[in-house]
Amino acid sequence: MSVQHHPALHPGQDDWLSHRLGEYKALATQELVRRVPRYLKRDTLRDLILDYPLRPGKGLRPALCMAACEAFGGRRRDALYSAVAIELFHNAFLVHDDIEDGSLLRRGLPTLHARYGVPLALNAGDAMNVLTLRALLDNFSTLGVERTQRIFEEIEWMVLQSVEGQSIELGWVEHAHWDLVESDYYLMSLKKTGWYTCISPCRIGALIGGASMRAINAFNAFGYHLGIAFQIQDDILNLKGDEALYGKENSGDLAEGKRTVMLIHLVRQTAGREREALIGILNKPRAEKTPDEVRWILACMEQHGSIEHAKRVAYRFAQRARQLMDTRLSFLPPSEAKRFLRALVDYVVYREL
Amino acid sequence: MSVQHHPALHPGQDDWLSHRLGEYKALATQELVRRVPRYLKRDTLRDLILDYPLRPGKGLRPALCMAACEAFGGRRRDALYSAVAIELFHNAFLVHDDIEDGSLLRRGLPTLHARYGVPLALNAGDAMNVLTLRALLDNFSTLGVERTQRIFEEIEWMVLQSVEGQSIELGWVEHAHWDLVESDYYLMSLKKTGWYTCISPCRIGALIGGASMRAINAFNAFGYHLGIAFQIQDDILNLKGDEALYGKENSGDLAEGKRTVMLIHLVRQTAGREREALIGILNKPRAEKTPDEVRWILACMEQHGSIEHAKRVAYRFAQRARQLMDTRLSFLPPSEAKRFLRALVDYVVYREL
Repeated sequence: MSVQHHPALHPGQDDWLSHRLGEYKALATQELVRRVPRYLKRDTLRDLILDYPLRPGKGLRPALCMAACEAFGGRRRDALYSAVAIELFHNAFLVHDDIEDGSLLRRGLPTLHARYGVPLALNAGDAMNVLTLRALLDNFSTLGVERTQRIFEEIEWMVLQSVEGQSIELGWVEHAHWDLVESDYYLMSLKKTGWYTCISPCRIGALIGGASMRAINAFNAFGYHLGIAFQIQDDILNLKGDEALYGKENSGDLAEGKRTVMLIHLVRQTAGREREALIGILNKPRAEKTPDEVRWILACMEQHGSIEHAKRVAYRFAQRARQLMDTRLSFLPPSEAKRFLRALVDYVVYREL
Repeated sequence: MSVQHHPALHPGQDDWLSHRLGEYKALATQELVRRVPRYLKRDTLRDLILDYPLRPGKGLRPALCMAACEAFGGRRRDALYSAVAIELFHNAFLVHDDIEDGSLLRRGLPTLHARYGVPLALNAGDAMNVLTLRALLDNFSTLGVERTQRIFEEIEWMVLQSVEGQSIELGWVEHAHWDLVESDYYLMSLKKTGWYTCISPCRIGALIGGASMRAINAFNAFGYHLGIAFQIQDDILNLKGDEALYGKENSGDLAEGKRTVMLIHLVRQTAGREREALIGILNKPRAEKTPDEVRWILACMEQHGSIEHAKRVAYRFAQRARQLMDTRLSFLPPSEAKRFLRALVDYVVYREL
């Protein structure tokens, strides 16, 4: 989980960041495992629930939540249940998303439905969502009524955004919609993953740490920019990565016809017969796209500079997130947690994993 | 939605029951529709969410919840949000269940995934679950913190039971498990549908009506017996019913290989080559079962008296529920709501819809 060197990262900072990310991740994973009832082992439901959470991953969401709490002087431990709830929701969302997209690999291994079949996998996703509820209810005893209620409100909004974003993206595929501009992507991405990946973890952590509503809201723009930078880099890695490096099937997004920044760029750069050929392939069901066709689209992207374009967009979003940390979030006193949040911005766009 | 005449029902009682059931249903449906955000109309998510709830149905769960509340002197209105939350959860569960079982029809119309494809339907189920959360959170302002927290605890348990029951049933199909006795079915049925169909609606209604924990717990055995009677009758209707009458594809359960009381009975009644042939057909994937094979299983059931047997079991469970109403629940003062709960027992096993 090392970070590629880049001028924005000081020497040694990648080790420090990886170490701290690893700490948050270990804490969250341990708590998550503890929360899956042992009696569900009987019929293997427990194995299915723990499958994705135990695969290697960065643990970005719990880390953001706990670090935001610490940045306001709160205890990491106080944000733990909420951080785990968000991580469980994330994994449930991945399980359902993989079914919806017909994805074959997740983090280098077969997707849950490829492994256990759609019925059991779908149900395991639902089970993970119930465990989310349990974790949030346990906040009543540790954080009191008022903060717990407010966390519930944040979570309700977060999940509503996610299903709406998912519905927008699935609708594009379902209705073969290609007349898209980048701002369509930003809005969809904000809703589908931005809220639950960055904005809500920060807001909820800040809330637990005792932040005022004004301070909590200051995370919105930061999380929006960080989330989109993260998602674009994720999409680039999916495109470039071989299976061993990235852990999803090679160019899986292209096979799925997923509308990414580079694909929207490519479609807008092409015209006439090239555009027709492109859209013709993209609209085919996943199974009917040949490897040659996928490779051809990839070559078109290289030729039209779509991937370079997407990288520039991701950098621009990350840069804005960094600025916001130094302006709208400048009221945060210096702390290890603040340093971590700031360093994450670079990590998110320069990571190779 | 009329009830077949039977000695246990007094003349006119069916009309009275249907009328009251219709009242609860109208109230719950109106509130449910109000709760689906209008802005979700944009990308048709709203249409998908409302598809199942607007199909004809009995509305048993909201009715139980509101009637249990009234039986303790509570106001129908106070149980409305919780009743709608349960109804939304039920519909989300149906959407996911239909995907998991590969069902083609639901209440006489194509299932949601048959209509809109698996991806959008699966996501709509997730969206319905978020709306459940919203309805439960709104209890804070109408019922106060303590009761709202307790309702959340009830709901968490209810949903956990449902996903566990679903996992047990899907596991039987997935692993071609046929060595089952009736008590295996009762436990699975209690978990999969018993809690959310009968026990939890009654408990939550009673809780809102101000019942003591002892009084709330008195509904457990009642709900258990009512729930299993209801489920068996549901399974019998699926088997017997033509599409127009029942609204699921004819003998859909047999095509799915669903372990019902009659199928467990049949498997245990057969031996040797007949049993082998039977299991051979049942283990085939749905699409590979021919109509002739399904008809043959149905004929075997008639021959071995499996359907008559299931009817007897359902009547026995209903009879026990009726007894419990007159013994463990005898502390309930006479009221229209109590009369309704008692009449529902007969309705559940004598209904043809």
